[in-house]
Amino acid sequence: MPSEIERKFLVTADTWRDGSPGVRISQGYLSQDPERTVRVRIGGKNAWLTIKGQTQGITRAEYEYAIPVAEARELLEMCLPSVIDKTRHKVPHADHIWEIDVFHGANEGLIVAEVELADASISPILPPWVGAEVSDDSRYFNSCLAAEPFTTW
Amino acid sequence: MPSEIERKFLVTADTWRDGSPGVRISQGYLSQDPERTVRVRIGGKNAWLTIKGQTQGITRAEYEYAIPVAEARELLEMCLPSVIDKTRHKVPHADHIWEIDVFHGANEGLIVAEVELADASISPILPPWVGAEVSDDSRYFNSCLAAEPFTTW
Repeated sequence: MPSEIERKFLVTADTWRDGSPGVRISQGYLSQDPERTVRVRIGGKNAWLTIKGQTQGITRAEYEYAIPVAEARELLEMCLPSVIDKTRHKVPHADHIWEIDVFHGANEGLIVAEVELADASISPILPPWVGAEVSDDSRYFNSCLAAEPFTTW
Repeated sequence: MPSEIERKFLVTADTWRDGSPGVRISQGYLSQDPERTVRVRIGGKNAWLTIKGQTQGITRAEYEYAIPVAEARELLEMCLPSVIDKTRHKVPHADHIWEIDVFHGANEGLIVAEVELADASISPILPPWVGAEVSDDSRYFNSCLAAEPFTTW
């Protein structure tokens, strides 16, 4: 089973910024059911349909399929309200590439950093610009941020 | 927008049978929401992920993507209960190919025939083995048969 092992942290400083524009991402959900989340994502010139299973610890089954961007745009219109809008930056630190998501719109003000691990037993070296870990906090799941955005907390 | 235009009828006689085995289909739903149904289907040696939008009359937006059968098997295990099991036969009649679904398991006893039309204004010539039309009856949607199977009606 393909799976993703991810840890997620709040970002507490701007020192990671290197002036690069990042990639704008729009994503929505055809299902926000945590046991079978179905996500439509457009990132730059590409698009994907992604199915994620129940989170077990920091591991989650994940199946991802590339789809045509034009169809992804139509699928986004079919998604549950609301669509998430964010800019993703990739920042190397020690042995890992961190993905920093700067949210816009209804989630403006939220910045989180994620690191994907090959094995759940690996402890990444934390960059100085991350704070509290929120891997287990379901409010920070993107599927939950779509339903209950950060600015409404 | 890709869409499907389909009419569906109950099958009232066995005279369509020609001895061919048909193709066994297993399908389940990651979302049964009628505005954004997400279906996983294995049919013979192929598998697909299909998203369907809200039905408008007999027309419905449909997006279909081929996926690996092994992943489809895992996705079926993530689907909502229950998985639909049926055998599909293709039977030509007049200008159209009819798809006859003979259901098994919790939907045993149900046989429906569907015809896909290029245009909603086309009236297909009905074969003698079809009875009442059920295109608009949501109980016969496969997504609904998964949740409320025929034998429980």
